[in-house]
Amino acid sequence: MQLPDDYIIAPDPTAPRLTRTVSGIDHTGARTDISVVEERPLTIYLNAQEVVTAMTIGDYPEFLAVGFLRNQGMLADGEEITGIDYDEELEVVVVRTASQTTYEEKVKKKTRTSGCAVGTVFGDMMEGLVGLTLPAVPVKTSWLYTLAHQINTTPSLYLEAGAIHGTVLCQGDKPLVYMEDVGRHNAVDKIAGWMMLNGVPAEDKILYTTGRLTSEMVIKTALMGIPVLASRSGFTAWGVEIARQVGLTCIGRMRGKRFVCLSGAERLDWDVDPDSIPEESKRSGRKAAE
Amino acid sequence: MQLPDDYIIAPDPTAPRLTRTVSGIDHTGARTDISVVEERPLTIYLNAQEVVTAMTIGDYPEFLAVGFLRNQGMLADGEEITGIDYDEELEVVVVRTASQTTYEEKVKKKTRTSGCAVGTVFGDMMEGLVGLTLPAVPVKTSWLYTLAHQINTTPSLYLEAGAIHGTVLCQGDKPLVYMEDVGRHNAVDKIAGWMMLNGVPAEDKILYTTGRLTSEMVIKTALMGIPVLASRSGFTAWGVEIARQVGLTCIGRMRGKRFVCLSGAERLDWDVDPDSIPEESKRSGRKAAE
Repeated sequence: MQLPDDYIIAPDPTAPRLTRTVSGIDHTGARTDISVVEERPLTIYLNAQEVVTAMTIGDYPEFLAVGFLRNQGMLADGEEITGIDYDEELEVVVVRTASQTTYEEKVKKKTRTSGCAVGTVFGDMMEGLVGLTLPAVPVKTSWLYTLAHQINTTPSLYLEAGAIHGTVLCQGDKPLVYMEDVGRHNAVDKIAGWMMLNGVPAEDKILYTTGRLTSEMVIKTALMGIPVLASRSGFTAWGVEIARQVGLTCIGRMRGKRFVCLSGAERLDWDVDPDSIPEESKRSGRKAAE
Repeated sequence: MQLPDDYIIAPDPTAPRLTRTVSGIDHTGARTDISVVEERPLTIYLNAQEVVTAMTIGDYPEFLAVGFLRNQGMLADGEEITGIDYDEELEVVVVRTASQTTYEEKVKKKTRTSGCAVGTVFGDMMEGLVGLTLPAVPVKTSWLYTLAHQINTTPSLYLEAGAIHGTVLCQGDKPLVYMEDVGRHNAVDKIAGWMMLNGVPAEDKILYTTGRLTSEMVIKTALMGIPVLASRSGFTAWGVEIARQVGLTCIGRMRGKRFVCLSGAERLDWDVDPDSIPEESKRSGRKAAE
């Protein structure tokens, strides 16, 4: 079993602020106490501009804010962050930059025309993909199996309380940073924020997620510059299309020895016989966050 | 097995527009063709006001638009809808009302102050809950078991292609309207839109979802006036808190004979011995959309 010590950041299922015990009644009519994950609003500001209210489990608000802004193209890679202020009571996090960002200009422009900036968010993400090509990095299939096994046996809020998604930044066969959140995309954004604030290179990394490989997940991974995305869950057609356009290796439906690669299969290095991989046991297998 | 004919609306896993066959490589290195769900942007307008771009599988855009606007409190129940125009090529749907809605006024006001209306969306949903109390409707546990079994054996896009969420409007032990979508909340919004446009009463209904019982799911169900929410997935703490405040009966973790009720358990009528319910078989059991 992978110990949390081997990670740079691992889930802390014992953290009191992240879960709560709630009493209920089970199917036999008996009283039961179950552990459920917390969910809190967090309002993210970029300088004086309110950007979004995210529903989050509440850990690493600074990483979430910076990663969200970066993945939306509101913070460029070279942007100088002069401060991040988190107010737990107000549930607000403010990211400050040395100068006004292009996002603030865009919001002003958009406001003058249609009165609301919601529609720009996704458009800005797509814009960031133009001309992007990820490096064609080889991926050993043994890494995929080792990562899946290690991640699935790491103590986590998921195993403790369920109803949560996990995303893990990996290098070769080593998981490095494991984030969980009630929102699938928050977990990815927290990793993006950690990478940006620590100046961590992306081109030698693999991103593993419990969630589906939707367009948004594929776009975020590509914008982060990570060339490989793996998941135990399935694909959407548009997610696959974008992955192929930008050269993102995309592996899904990873369960036991099985997986399907719908983009970048030519980069896979089959260095292990799949028949030597045990089927996922009912006990260690993660169930669905859904 | 429940036949689709028994539903008013059931999934149509054979609809050519909703899935696509994509070629890839499996874990043995062999070519494999798999069916994946489509995912399309849909931009929703309320009169001349652009509101949001949702990622959706693309069926029932009119129901999705009306249900989204209603669940966000942007369309009141008595609001007169004078037209709904969907343009498939532009991926735009416009909902027209006889007079300007309060939402448009709010956006204008918000725009003048902070320049962006994103933050209002969740606040408006919470506002709609003030003073709301759902009717204390009894729920037979036999209904829950029958519904879960029928829904899990209904042919669906989920069973065909995976990576999708389902939500079903039910009455007693009968599923009526079964919507699926790549976005969990889209499936609920499509049901809300169908109910609003058909004048369907809510107080005798049960909402079943494959997704987690998060705050947003609980709030949407409460705003729709549906007094019972059931899921095969888990809870968040805030979701439970809101459910208790508004008197929403909340049943989660429904698998085989098991379930947990964390709100409204006093309304359950144990009319069947749980031991008479078979365990969920591996084959008929739905896996995770995640």
